[in-house]
Amino acid sequence: MRFASFIFDGVSQALKRNSMVPKVVVLVAVSGGGLIAYSESQSDHGASIVRSSETEPKKKKLVVLGTGWAGTSFLKNLDGSLYDIQVVSPRNYFAFTPLLPSVTCGTVEARSIVEPIRKIIKKKNGEVRFCEAECFKIDPVNKKVHCQANAGSNLNGTGEFVVDYDYLVIAMGAKANTFNTPGVVEHCHFLKEVEDAQRIRRSVIDSLEKANLPNLSEEEKRKNLQFVIVGGGPTGVEFAAELHDFLTEDVGKIYPNIRDLVRITVVEAGGHILSMFDKRITAFAEQKFQREGIDVKLGYKVTKVSDKAITMVDRANTVTDLPYGMVVWSTGIGTRPVIRSFMEEIGQEDISAIFNVADKDNSGTLTVKEIQDVLGDICERYPQVQLYLKSRDMRGLVDLLNDAEGNERKENRELSIEEFKKALAHVDSQVKFLPATAQVSFCTCIHVCFGLHVPTYEYTDEEADTLTVMVLQCFRNMYKHLGSFAPLGGEQTAAELPGDWISIGHSSQWLWYSVYASKQVSWRTRALVISDWMRRFIFGRDSSGI
Amino acid sequence: MRFASFIFDGVSQALKRNSMVPKVVVLVAVSGGGLIAYSESQSDHGASIVRSSETEPKKKKLVVLGTGWAGTSFLKNLDGSLYDIQVVSPRNYFAFTPLLPSVTCGTVEARSIVEPIRKIIKKKNGEVRFCEAECFKIDPVNKKVHCQANAGSNLNGTGEFVVDYDYLVIAMGAKANTFNTPGVVEHCHFLKEVEDAQRIRRSVIDSLEKANLPNLSEEEKRKNLQFVIVGGGPTGVEFAAELHDFLTEDVGKIYPNIRDLVRITVVEAGGHILSMFDKRITAFAEQKFQREGIDVKLGYKVTKVSDKAITMVDRANTVTDLPYGMVVWSTGIGTRPVIRSFMEEIGQEDISAIFNVADKDNSGTLTVKEIQDVLGDICERYPQVQLYLKSRDMRGLVDLLNDAEGNERKENRELSIEEFKKALAHVDSQVKFLPATAQVSFCTCIHVCFGLHVPTYEYTDEEADTLTVMVLQCFRNMYKHLGSFAPLGGEQTAAELPGDWISIGHSSQWLWYSVYASKQVSWRTRALVISDWMRRFIFGRDSSGI
Repeated sequence: MRFASFIFDGVSQALKRNSMVPKVVVLVAVSGGGLIAYSESQSDHGASIVRSSETEPKKKKLVVLGTGWAGTSFLKNLDGSLYDIQVVSPRNYFAFTPLLPSVTCGTVEARSIVEPIRKIIKKKNGEVRFCEAECFKIDPVNKKVHCQANAGSNLNGTGEFVVDYDYLVIAMGAKANTFNTPGVVEHCHFLKEVEDAQRIRRSVIDSLEKANLPNLSEEEKRKNLQFVIVGGGPTGVEFAAELHDFLTEDVGKIYPNIRDLVRITVVEAGGHILSMFDKRITAFAEQKFQREGIDVKLGYKVTKVSDKAITMVDRANTVTDLPYGMVVWSTGIGTRPVIRSFMEEIGQEDISAIFNVADKDNSGTLTVKEIQDVLGDICERYPQVQLYLKSRDMRGLVDLLNDAEGNERKENRELSIEEFKKALAHVDSQVKFLPATAQVSFCTCIHVCFGLHVPTYEYTDEEADTLTVMVLQCFRNMYKHLGSFAPLGGEQTAAELPGDWISIGHSSQWLWYSVYASKQVSWRTRALVISDWMRRFIFGRDSSGI
Repeated sequence: MRFASFIFDGVSQALKRNSMVPKVVVLVAVSGGGLIAYSESQSDHGASIVRSSETEPKKKKLVVLGTGWAGTSFLKNLDGSLYDIQVVSPRNYFAFTPLLPSVTCGTVEARSIVEPIRKIIKKKNGEVRFCEAECFKIDPVNKKVHCQANAGSNLNGTGEFVVDYDYLVIAMGAKANTFNTPGVVEHCHFLKEVEDAQRIRRSVIDSLEKANLPNLSEEEKRKNLQFVIVGGGPTGVEFAAELHDFLTEDVGKIYPNIRDLVRITVVEAGGHILSMFDKRITAFAEQKFQREGIDVKLGYKVTKVSDKAITMVDRANTVTDLPYGMVVWSTGIGTRPVIRSFMEEIGQEDISAIFNVADKDNSGTLTVKEIQDVLGDICERYPQVQLYLKSRDMRGLVDLLNDAEGNERKENRELSIEEFKKALAHVDSQVKFLPATAQVSFCTCIHVCFGLHVPTYEYTDEEADTLTVMVLQCFRNMYKHLGSFAPLGGEQTAAELPGDWISIGHSSQWLWYSVYASKQVSWRTRALVISDWMRRFIFGRDSSGI
């Protein structure tokens, strides 16, 4: 959260100082690795810099899409009196998403991790308006966002409306990535929203109750009690651990006759769970899960989900069907369609702009040398390029190009614009393998969803410059690896701290409690979360089916 | 709750002492005033009374339908080792329903008022089994109940199953009574279940958010912000008061631009709200509501609810349409179809039995004198008759017959069995006007839903006698008027205490807090409810749309 606040602080601060940033469209494009840069200018560079809003007859319209980590951090640090601010989001609250796995089993209540967005924006100086609606189309040409109000039988008409903007902040969050696996949307639970966590909770209890009905064969009982988690990342692992604790500590006692039939299975396509963590943590987690009877299936790829079973193939292409009672799909995040179409619309233009700047001899192709010269700019515009290079220990763009094409490339080979686009697209497709840890999912959330247009090429206005440089510096600072947590159940947490420090066990769990309590967005939610933990210590988790 | 426990204690105690009550079917028929009496005997009066279960090879099967007040109180006081107990209910928890109005606005959380039924039955000696399913048919001839498991895509087949019983306790609760008004089921919220309260809460926030959308005319905003409560009984009044507090204390601050457009309307068919309370309370409540701007429409009967508006007629038959954003329908309770059909199946037999006993001269008709002679028995079998007579200040059955037929009847007129049934049916239809107060809705819940067969006619076994006499005494004790509360909002409550004591104001509110805290079913829920109240005092109510 600190990172998140920090970077959006950057944007906010810049906006504070520059009440007339010359028609820069600030974009926080939310996607699963597809970062995008964009700006719009109507070439009024000559506009005088007016620092007091009194002389400005009308405030600029700033529209913020989304009330997740990005949108909320941005809003909290913005001077509301300088802009005419309109927030649009399908949820009228901010949710502390890192605690969602705790909500699935009632360790923390859903309501304790949400804060009404109106309470947050009420503290701003000026009036900040909020609309509970979903943006389904961004029209950058006419500077409009098309929105649809949440369904409601009492609303007249379709509930569609249009909001004009001068500046737009897109912070809509990502959606769960199903890799287009058939049946996932229909039969699996995701763990992205508060409602998802509530549904999972009800579904767990439903499965237990179903297994308790009379006249069921043991096979049917086992099927109902087979909980499957697809994806061995931090969210999946944390949920598996929470579920295991819930079933052994709380539920087992009151469902004595089915206790021994419950089975939790984690399906992971890679060779290890928690693969983005240090090997020691991975090994500890795998051993702990094995001891506790949590079945970890490594190297299995899910190919289909039906209403009865999950179909998966292992690396030897053997097909296995696993009947299930409940599946949670947690394999990472993907780009929302609205963002994707927006990116497609404007992304190409941007890459062309970089290409033209880099192509100093106007040859229509770039030498590797020419690319190296603009690599700094590329990394600023597409921060994922830098992250990618770093994560793969690559020396520079040559490695990147080799990686993209899969064969050795000579340094003097020239690139056409299509090849250049292909290399960047490759980075985009790979960037999802970067750490997306549970504890720092706020960091993650920002990192994978962050894209900014840097108008350093065309626009040299002082304001624009200050703004964008600050934002980019924030972004780079943001991704410093400041530590990750992976709660493993049984009051044990694995923590990966800077400087190759690894801490696993009960002490890390207490560190986790402290960090999560301190990172709450308000004193109210902090008090509620802490009192939920206390309630859990005293009374255990509730297992009512509501 | 004391009353509830008391009466079910009675049943439980009797069952404890008599481990072989001769095939008496104990029926706690749940209905909106339709009390029913029934028993089944297979004439094995000679069976020896066995007090120790060791000599009995197989325990009798006791099936309890429902986990509301009646079912839970019964279970809590039953010796689980004496019977083979199976509980069937669509909800795997007990809910403290008197706090439902508080849940609608987040004064108390839904989860704080529920206790898993498995936790309650775990404390019993023997094994008590529970199935989450709904009973849809009772077959008294074959002593079976037909059940349907809660819908679930992963359950094979239809989810139907059959449970055998020796003794059956029906405590399924009533359903909301719509008086067959068109559109009520489709467009109105009820306030009977925990889920209802949660839906109402979301709907209130939805209405506020809808009214905040851009491009709405003031008329449309007002429509979305028109909250209607149909029914001026204690539940409706308490909900109206809670809603008013929520909107003024918590929501108004963060929705400043629509604060003044909100309107709460209570529609009551009678001449006063809270008509079952003392006149001083009614007057105080009506004046308080008027001061606070809550619109109370007296003498209006709702004839239709469409998706846009409520249609109602006043006493002069003038038709009014009231556009609304949300309606809560709270006009009392009715009989569930499964109970109704069961009652129809066996009720007729029972009335015939009474008739035959009363008809000493076998004339086929009853003189009023003959009825007077068995009035005591009638009142035992149909407790609502006694309540009804008492509530109307009637001297005896003559008044009742007059009331039923609407004209004077001579004392020497004789009644055919059809006329006798008609008179009893009239009582059934009228009994819903008896007090059904919010505070003592546990009492209410029991009172209107309580029916027991009293096998004093046919079966004189010691066991049966002990059991039924105890139960009936409990029932009569239960209805002693031991006080009612009507929370009116703004930390004020009206209390009607025994001996014509009326207390209205803040002190009664504190009495209310104490009583409700003390009446919680477990220490866990008690702690949760109290901490919810404290949270509310400190942080206010949450207004997130979840």
